[in-house]
Amino acid sequence: MEFSSKLLEKAVNEMAQLPGIGKRTALRLVLHLLKQPAEQTQFLSNALTTMREEIKFCKSCHNISDVDVCEICNNSNRNHQIICVVEDVRDVMAIENTNQFKGVYHVLGGKISPIDGVGPSQLNITSLVEKAKLGQVEELIFALSSTMEGDTTNFYIYKQIKDLPIKTSTIARGIAVGDELEYADEVTLGRSILNRIPFDFSIK
Amino acid sequence: MEFSSKLLEKAVNEMAQLPGIGKRTALRLVLHLLKQPAEQTQFLSNALTTMREEIKFCKSCHNISDVDVCEICNNSNRNHQIICVVEDVRDVMAIENTNQFKGVYHVLGGKISPIDGVGPSQLNITSLVEKAKLGQVEELIFALSSTMEGDTTNFYIYKQIKDLPIKTSTIARGIAVGDELEYADEVTLGRSILNRIPFDFSIK
Repeated sequence: MEFSSKLLEKAVNEMAQLPGIGKRTALRLVLHLLKQPAEQTQFLSNALTTMREEIKFCKSCHNISDVDVCEICNNSNRNHQIICVVEDVRDVMAIENTNQFKGVYHVLGGKISPIDGVGPSQLNITSLVEKAKLGQVEELIFALSSTMEGDTTNFYIYKQIKDLPIKTSTIARGIAVGDELEYADEVTLGRSILNRIPFDFSIK
Repeated sequence: MEFSSKLLEKAVNEMAQLPGIGKRTALRLVLHLLKQPAEQTQFLSNALTTMREEIKFCKSCHNISDVDVCEICNNSNRNHQIICVVEDVRDVMAIENTNQFKGVYHVLGGKISPIDGVGPSQLNITSLVEKAKLGQVEELIFALSSTMEGDTTNFYIYKQIKDLPIKTSTIARGIAVGDELEYADEVTLGRSILNRIPFDFSIK
């Protein structure tokens, strides 16, 4: 791609560094910004820079936060004895949306994945194990995705806390509500039969 | 979507203003920036702001440029009597890539589109007509997309210069090289028969 302007080229190249944004998409986005009032670009740049520089991670759960200890960890109405272990902030948002969980979270910041060069030391695992050893934790819920990396991470954490008097659980795997059985994959369908639960017509 | 941080929320909202970027994609991009070194966000913000503030449009053809008159308009080896009328800078880049055109360009900055609120006065049409009236122009090549808006724009410009001794042409519409006839739409196929050209086995 040959650009008529170095400034344009630089902006497109920087934009194309973002995941899933190719050069053509980057050019489309940058040309859109050029058509909009200059303030929009200013607002976007400022929001990104301020966010990158000033954002904090909760000292307790490592979730993204504007303060040292996030709202969830600071909330005395929540059950601090149940910790839900998740991969990143998006999972916290997803589970919070369900309104079904009243415990607290621990954000690992990723999964153990040797192929991507992510080892246990790059994740927030040590602080989780230390928290568990303090004796205040009753249950750890593993809510990582059920991939090889997720299972590895679950097992790695489990090995370190298995001698502590802590219950461990994983979220249920099964057929999604509203899904047709015939389109479900065999592994999920198989697990949903093995892990069947007592019928209760009052559960929606 | 509920965010655990106002800074994160603001960055995501600004990012989601870009066309084709929804809230989820914006969140993914912003979280990616958070995982990268802070310089990457800084580089991106700087490139965007500098580009938006310092970029110029060529005084002659309105193409994006770093200088007052762009390289193409400044090149005495190019034929300044043939002007190719295009919608935006991407079309200039696409035609330049073919290495088949040695004239100059005129970038309209859009197409007449009442439905999007774009009238002739928002486009660089007046300067094109003035350039044509100076008597140095031999041919105008309309290279807008063949949509209703493109055809309207072509016709609007044509009406204003039709009494001048200027040849007008449009780029050929037909079956793309390598395409199968059976999958071509009827309008394109029809035009390709009406506008057939003498057979020449030397053309690749």
